[in-house]
Amino acid sequence: MKWWFGSPGKVSGLVLRMGQCLSAAASLALMASASGFSTATSFCKKNIVDSMGLQVLWSFGLACLDIHALRLKKDLHNHIFLSLLVVGDWVTAILSLAAACSSAGVMVLLMKDTDICRSHNLLSCNTFQISIALAFVAWFLLAISSYIMFWLLATI
Amino acid sequence: MKWWFGSPGKVSGLVLRMGQCLSAAASLALMASASGFSTATSFCKKNIVDSMGLQVLWSFGLACLDIHALRLKKDLHNHIFLSLLVVGDWVTAILSLAAACSSAGVMVLLMKDTDICRSHNLLSCNTFQISIALAFVAWFLLAISSYIMFWLLATI
Repeated sequence: MKWWFGSPGKVSGLVLRMGQCLSAAASLALMASASGFSTATSFCKKNIVDSMGLQVLWSFGLACLDIHALRLKKDLHNHIFLSLLVVGDWVTAILSLAAACSSAGVMVLLMKDTDICRSHNLLSCNTFQISIALAFVAWFLLAISSYIMFWLLATI
Repeated sequence: MKWWFGSPGKVSGLVLRMGQCLSAAASLALMASASGFSTATSFCKKNIVDSMGLQVLWSFGLACLDIHALRLKKDLHNHIFLSLLVVGDWVTAILSLAAACSSAGVMVLLMKDTDICRSHNLLSCNTFQISIALAFVAWFLLAISSYIMFWLLATI
């Protein structure tokens, strides 16, 4: 039984889950509050809101499980639980990356190749950009968790 | 020492690498041959051509290494080589997914939300779509390899 940094039921694991949850929630809140001004931004919005919503639910649920395990000193290292975490983490991570990348692609188009951002309120464009950057941070933190879970499952 | 499906220096590993190489090359060739008609498509083109070019080089190199190992019956399962494969596979896979997703985001915009595709030659739009679909296939095959390499490295 190995107790790696970030493994489930450990303080470092809880910190990682809280980081994922907070960055995804911040990205979601910013995107939801930004005013859409074209079909392009509504596409970005839908993508980011869906995938970050899923990530907030997933990471928050696992953070609660970590707190529960820490309080009762439970051991969460078993094959079935780790397999579930690996599948869930990877699916969520791939969806988050896909949403962040497709939105980033659309934003690059709006910011650089067309005049849409310049002709509209600049503030909204910046909010969109910050939200997408936060989505990348949320994905990166989730990717770290995914690797740790996969490594734990392989070496258990 | 475990000999998994798709591990380096095995026929299944060679088949997987050839599949990655061929699908990435097909995606690259289709994208390069499609005529761009707006800044949006030039963005798609650059993304896909760059990442698929990288993937063709990477997968072709490893396929050659597999052929070499198969002919000389060499064992490629050592820590340093597997670590290199894991890092390379993951970096290439993430770049491929990012390029495919950002291009897909832009294409959804062109196809559904605007009239750009309808007002131009439809053939080009279809070529772009097939190329992006092949990029997703190439990413999926590379992701399988990445998981196998990571698992081998963890259990070696």
